[in-house]
Amino acid sequence: MGKVSVRFLPDELTVEAQEGQLVLDAALEAGIFIPAACGGTGGCGQCKVKVVEGSVKAQMLEKLSDRERSEGYVLACQSRLTTDVGIEIPKVKVGRKVIPRDEAERMSLTARPMESPISAEMSPMTFRVLMEPKAPTPEDNSSDYERIVRTLKTDHEIYPVTASLNVVRELPSVARNDNWRLTACMRIEETFDSGLPVYRLVRIHSGHVSAPPTAVAVDIGTTSLWGELINLETGEVLARASRYNPQISMGDDVISRIVFALKRDGLEKLQHHVVNGLNEIIDEILKKSNQPRKSVNYVVAAGNTVMTHLFLCLYPKFLRESPYVPAAQNVGPVDARELGLNLPMGAFVRVFPGVASYVGGDIVSGVLANGMWDSDEMTLFIDIGTNGEIVAGNRDLLMTASCSAGPAFEGGGLEFGMRAAPGAIEGILIDPDTLEPMIKTIDAKPAMGICGSGIINIISQMLKIGILNQNGTYAQDLPTDRIRKGRSGNEYVICRADQTGIDEDIVLTEVDLDNVLRAKGAMFSGYACLLDKIGLSVDALDRVIIAGAFGSFINLDHAITIGLLPDIDREKFLFIGNASLKGARLAVMSRQLFSRAKHIARTMTNVELSEDHTYMDNFMAALFLPHTRGDLFPSVRVGMYGH
Amino acid sequence: MGKVSVRFLPDELTVEAQEGQLVLDAALEAGIFIPAACGGTGGCGQCKVKVVEGSVKAQMLEKLSDRERSEGYVLACQSRLTTDVGIEIPKVKVGRKVIPRDEAERMSLTARPMESPISAEMSPMTFRVLMEPKAPTPEDNSSDYERIVRTLKTDHEIYPVTASLNVVRELPSVARNDNWRLTACMRIEETFDSGLPVYRLVRIHSGHVSAPPTAVAVDIGTTSLWGELINLETGEVLARASRYNPQISMGDDVISRIVFALKRDGLEKLQHHVVNGLNEIIDEILKKSNQPRKSVNYVVAAGNTVMTHLFLCLYPKFLRESPYVPAAQNVGPVDARELGLNLPMGAFVRVFPGVASYVGGDIVSGVLANGMWDSDEMTLFIDIGTNGEIVAGNRDLLMTASCSAGPAFEGGGLEFGMRAAPGAIEGILIDPDTLEPMIKTIDAKPAMGICGSGIINIISQMLKIGILNQNGTYAQDLPTDRIRKGRSGNEYVICRADQTGIDEDIVLTEVDLDNVLRAKGAMFSGYACLLDKIGLSVDALDRVIIAGAFGSFINLDHAITIGLLPDIDREKFLFIGNASLKGARLAVMSRQLFSRAKHIARTMTNVELSEDHTYMDNFMAALFLPHTRGDLFPSVRVGMYGH
Repeated sequence: MGKVSVRFLPDELTVEAQEGQLVLDAALEAGIFIPAACGGTGGCGQCKVKVVEGSVKAQMLEKLSDRERSEGYVLACQSRLTTDVGIEIPKVKVGRKVIPRDEAERMSLTARPMESPISAEMSPMTFRVLMEPKAPTPEDNSSDYERIVRTLKTDHEIYPVTASLNVVRELPSVARNDNWRLTACMRIEETFDSGLPVYRLVRIHSGHVSAPPTAVAVDIGTTSLWGELINLETGEVLARASRYNPQISMGDDVISRIVFALKRDGLEKLQHHVVNGLNEIIDEILKKSNQPRKSVNYVVAAGNTVMTHLFLCLYPKFLRESPYVPAAQNVGPVDARELGLNLPMGAFVRVFPGVASYVGGDIVSGVLANGMWDSDEMTLFIDIGTNGEIVAGNRDLLMTASCSAGPAFEGGGLEFGMRAAPGAIEGILIDPDTLEPMIKTIDAKPAMGICGSGIINIISQMLKIGILNQNGTYAQDLPTDRIRKGRSGNEYVICRADQTGIDEDIVLTEVDLDNVLRAKGAMFSGYACLLDKIGLSVDALDRVIIAGAFGSFINLDHAITIGLLPDIDREKFLFIGNASLKGARLAVMSRQLFSRAKHIARTMTNVELSEDHTYMDNFMAALFLPHTRGDLFPSVRVGMYGH
Repeated sequence: MGKVSVRFLPDELTVEAQEGQLVLDAALEAGIFIPAACGGTGGCGQCKVKVVEGSVKAQMLEKLSDRERSEGYVLACQSRLTTDVGIEIPKVKVGRKVIPRDEAERMSLTARPMESPISAEMSPMTFRVLMEPKAPTPEDNSSDYERIVRTLKTDHEIYPVTASLNVVRELPSVARNDNWRLTACMRIEETFDSGLPVYRLVRIHSGHVSAPPTAVAVDIGTTSLWGELINLETGEVLARASRYNPQISMGDDVISRIVFALKRDGLEKLQHHVVNGLNEIIDEILKKSNQPRKSVNYVVAAGNTVMTHLFLCLYPKFLRESPYVPAAQNVGPVDARELGLNLPMGAFVRVFPGVASYVGGDIVSGVLANGMWDSDEMTLFIDIGTNGEIVAGNRDLLMTASCSAGPAFEGGGLEFGMRAAPGAIEGILIDPDTLEPMIKTIDAKPAMGICGSGIINIISQMLKIGILNQNGTYAQDLPTDRIRKGRSGNEYVICRADQTGIDEDIVLTEVDLDNVLRAKGAMFSGYACLLDKIGLSVDALDRVIIAGAFGSFINLDHAITIGLLPDIDREKFLFIGNASLKGARLAVMSRQLFSRAKHIARTMTNVELSEDHTYMDNFMAALFLPHTRGDLFPSVRVGMYGH
């Protein structure tokens, strides 16, 4: 897609935008306020703009009067940019504050999207052998199993081979269904010191199967589950799906999950729930990609240590008692069906090993994906999830720590928080005059709630406009009915009931604000502490890689304004998205990279922040927007519009 | 026990007997007929004898009149020999035929009992490690599993170690129950070409367990199941138990079991039944020996190939279709609980590999136990079971074959056949004059049926006395009501209903006789054929080792008389009993011997008799008592008492 230029009037602000982008989105990114209450569904009809130069590709023109159409009005949320264009925002009140150009440019800065720099040569954990053993004769009537093993050795140089009894049970029928034409699925297993591989026959099919084998990469988050189906011949991602982690009904964060697990049958229930969620994801990706279930050979799962314990049904009690000891980090291949996954016989699960009780396999997977283990650049890697994890270092040294951020940035623990899913409010702009919000939902579906990036955006803007105090409470006596007294202290109405998909006002309460403050405070003090251990200042970082379940690329200005990210050169920020899932995908594709992940887990140094007294001091100081020490955030200006 | 001398009157036959032996048993072995209809329970009161020299230790004297007691009468079945003694059999009819001394001596010859000549140095498949890893600290909070693995390596030089997820799941609680004092149960596993052992942590207990670990040796016969509990420190057999194989309700022999297995859910039902039987045996041996269930570390099972398939739930269809291919012979350790065995977590099952579809792991186990693989002596090994297997050779060469003998010698397929269990008629003597039987049951319980050795004894005697023709039909018009027309042709009444434990006449029918004829014919022609392949005559054999589920040592004269055993020097015969169970016991005790068994299975040459035209000729010729070729049985005299 090419770029086009958009001149917004009467602000006289010209910005660059993507060809095909919606006018509403371009305005949102430029910080130009257009009334839009419905999230971009076309439902409210408020976002009328006049095309004064060039033209756009507009839909839903029937919402406009004949006169409006003849004058060149379109709906900003239904019009896509095709050429350079001039857009006039109508009904501008006298005295409307124009946003300074540099401010607008900065507000539109997002962390640059980053794909994993690690390229995986395809070397999956399983491979396929098309074989044709000689049929038995009276002279050679050795057993079916010995015949297969012998043929693998003599015809394919694959030995030694083991097999589970379940595979042996299938042999007699499978072998004769297509007259000893067979496709064997072999797993490659390292054998310790000897270094020689041992092969395990995990499945066998009649005939010579040609459809590509697949595997599933899975990210087991405290709040969300993600899965991808991957073609094991090409590495192509065939389909992707996500769900809430169904364990949420048993606790929002890892600690409450552990508490639940210690109840009678609690662990089994939690295990059952997460497996159900994964089974739904597997169903969905198989359906989306039109692949048969039997194509799936294995699953690689990355999750934090608590999630891994609950998935494998390992007793998690001692994860939360000092000295915080996991039951296990490195477990071998586990039978997928034994765990309850709806996958074919022989399918197995490999789980990323973690570093410590609160630095899990998801972080190891994320580090694998972001490539900092293979880079000279001094990198800060921040995974903003329910449990916030931080890794600092480069190929010479990797140090890690975790802090209990809570699920606020994943949309959890907030009255109307939600995952970055269709209907989540992710883009938001508040009119400095009217204090009315302009909102944009994911996929332009009726608003259901507000996701992590939306939260960051709205708080940042409220702070700039001055309707939010730096301690996280709302300013008093403002000329708007959007701020009102609610059940949980004061609240701001982001979207009125009649414009939502849930028939309820979507609000942001002061209790929500307090949760966000604690979450960002935990993250900030976490990386401040960790960098301090290494003896690095924030400015010495070559780059900051952000991972997390945000709806789209994270808006840097907003994240820095609330004090979540350090106030450094914006060019240094990269957004890798779900790094844990990306790492799991790499491990699906390459045994070498899975081994590398094990090496990373073994060698990464963990710092227990909870045992560190400077952490609590840092945390208390960070419970302010952006921070009690303003000098740490020199570029942030709050209350700039003077409410 | 010492020996005593017994002089029987009026026969004037003096024999040696065991001190403590019952007078009835001594007479039975000597071929001296004493009326005894009840099997030795003391119920019929017929076996009155007069002690004329010395004395016996007599019970149930209340069954006798005062006068009888004062004259020195006792019940032969209730009187034990304590010193040299003279016994007079009363009510001897005029003209009673006295058995010649040499005949009597020969009739009392049993195959010498043989224990396994193989001595096992204790090297069980599992061993125990008493360990005390250092408890976790904030400086060393690696996971429980990694801590155990590390301690095994550093403190015990045991590595590499793997573990199942189930063991890992138990670690957190088990490790802390006794403050990191632990007892680990390790399995030793060979790793193929490298030859280096890999260790598997199969179970772990809190504290330092001192009670001895145990394992179970199992013989899975088509008709009977046997089990022994073995102390893994000393090799002592702690308890033994047996049952009918509950699969009998689904077919008497292996072929009918295979047919059943191919029905819907048939295989699963058969598997379930045999496992139920084994579970009962395990319950019994644990109870008898007062050992806890958790002491059991593993099971070694020997069975024929069909039994092994059914036990492991392997599809048996192609075992009975030319070219007779098993699904598998060598399978690795199988989780005992996965098979349905009621054993603790981590317990596993090893199954003896077989040679072919009809020469199974039970024969390999039997060969292991009888030591012919380690001997220069040219040996014929005959396992007389439902499936008759034969092995010939010595350390230089082992050849084997099988023949479908049917279950007659295990008491199956006969109207009143039964296993060698309490109440089974095993000893029998027929009065040449009255044609009345003298019977002795196992454990002197009321007669329930007749077992294999009883069958051989009765047929041999009927043949000698002349009430049975050499073609297996009863002689006509004899002066006895014991022979009568029954539902299945003519029959001989062995025990009348009022003397039995089943309120029914126990009879031997001509259909039964035909079954026995076929069974012994199959066995005889089997070893005749096999010896022919090797180019050996029967006389060239150094020894004949007999295995089988007989009640006590097999009576050679009787077995040769019916043509089951070759007519050679009686000194060459040895009776090893349940060789399969003995071999399983050796494998329980020694990994090296289990490896040796695998080697025996690999190197033994199988001859398919069903593909051999000379076998059928041999078989037809053997359907006569003892054989159509009388010159093969020079010492056998039939009809000697001239009925």
